[in-house]
Amino acid sequence: MIPEGASYFLSWRLAVEANNARGWRTVPSQCLSYVEAYMLGGQYDRDLELIVDQILSYINEIVPSDDGAMDAWILDVDDTCISNLFYYRGKRYGCDPFDPAGFKAWALKGGCPAIPAVLGLFKYLVRNGFKVFLITGRDQETLGKATTDNLHNQGFIGYERLIFKTAGFKGQSASAYKSEIRRRVEKEGYRIVGNVGDQWSDLQGECLGSRAFKLPNPMYFVP
Amino acid sequence: MIPEGASYFLSWRLAVEANNARGWRTVPSQCLSYVEAYMLGGQYDRDLELIVDQILSYINEIVPSDDGAMDAWILDVDDTCISNLFYYRGKRYGCDPFDPAGFKAWALKGGCPAIPAVLGLFKYLVRNGFKVFLITGRDQETLGKATTDNLHNQGFIGYERLIFKTAGFKGQSASAYKSEIRRRVEKEGYRIVGNVGDQWSDLQGECLGSRAFKLPNPMYFVP
Repeated sequence: MIPEGASYFLSWRLAVEANNARGWRTVPSQCLSYVEAYMLGGQYDRDLELIVDQILSYINEIVPSDDGAMDAWILDVDDTCISNLFYYRGKRYGCDPFDPAGFKAWALKGGCPAIPAVLGLFKYLVRNGFKVFLITGRDQETLGKATTDNLHNQGFIGYERLIFKTAGFKGQSASAYKSEIRRRVEKEGYRIVGNVGDQWSDLQGECLGSRAFKLPNPMYFVP
Repeated sequence: MIPEGASYFLSWRLAVEANNARGWRTVPSQCLSYVEAYMLGGQYDRDLELIVDQILSYINEIVPSDDGAMDAWILDVDDTCISNLFYYRGKRYGCDPFDPAGFKAWALKGGCPAIPAVLGLFKYLVRNGFKVFLITGRDQETLGKATTDNLHNQGFIGYERLIFKTAGFKGQSASAYKSEIRRRVEKEGYRIVGNVGDQWSDLQGECLGSRAFKLPNPMYFVP
């Protein structure tokens, strides 16, 4: 018998990851200890490893396009390439509401560790000739330098382009902004063969590419 | 510490429900006892209940269209309205490959029990004036009568239409077939405000409506 709180957390997390729960602002506080156990106890890492295994299987099945040099992958940055877990630990794993100033101060430190499974995927993609586009909702002006340095010091080197949100996209949803960026990438002639993110807003909208992979994130929701 | 097998099942189920795992033919056999515990031990029912709660919240937020009489919901049938759990118990909860003849014999008996949470949702939708379309990949000619009777004897009464797969759709994927049916529904002037199914193929393709809800199903995959 699964204890009641653990059972509720499982149901809630399933609803989040299957895109049934939308627009939520905080993790239900009764889930606090379970989110913590999930993120720190190994299950989160194992979930990521299985998804990366599935991505690698997919890559090995696809036939490169005639001009393979234009085969592109889209990767999100926050909690896809690099982790904000240490920051969210101080925000009760998302039980506290989003704190824009606090997050900005954290991001400016440039100390987000790589997510090992995704770093491995990234290196595999680069090594195999895919063009990797890192697309982030972080603001270019204020966070561009710190984020670029952070990604580099964590080993994300060799990507085709790292794209930040610029002033022109201010106020647009992540889904609309990322759709427009993907449209521009396709217009340049790239063929998006895969798209990886921890938010459904990374994976929905327009120009989605051939296949999307949702990484787990039970701590916050980006519309 | 979560035992290794349980942990793998959690990762695998997450990958299935988040639409990362596609085209799988059988449940990994090391998951057998965990699928059984999930389906029979209460977690599956609790997961369904939470999703139905979320659907009800969504319904209470939406503004009826000017002609509310044309607001439609799409519900899948197998393992959405009625359950094949007893059948799949004999197929090692999906660890055995799909057996078309066996499934047909089971469906002909017309003994699938209602899924209580979804029956409650169905009745709520009908009572509140929504037009409910039940769309199933079951073959009209061979399974139409038994399935209609089964749905009625389980309380699914008052829907707008029950739509079976006809010969013209033979060989089409569930996603293509259901997209075409939804297109016809919209062409008649209905506005699809919600779509509920246990397979991602119920919820992807064209004419998807305003919102989709994925119910759990770790036992089989319909492309």
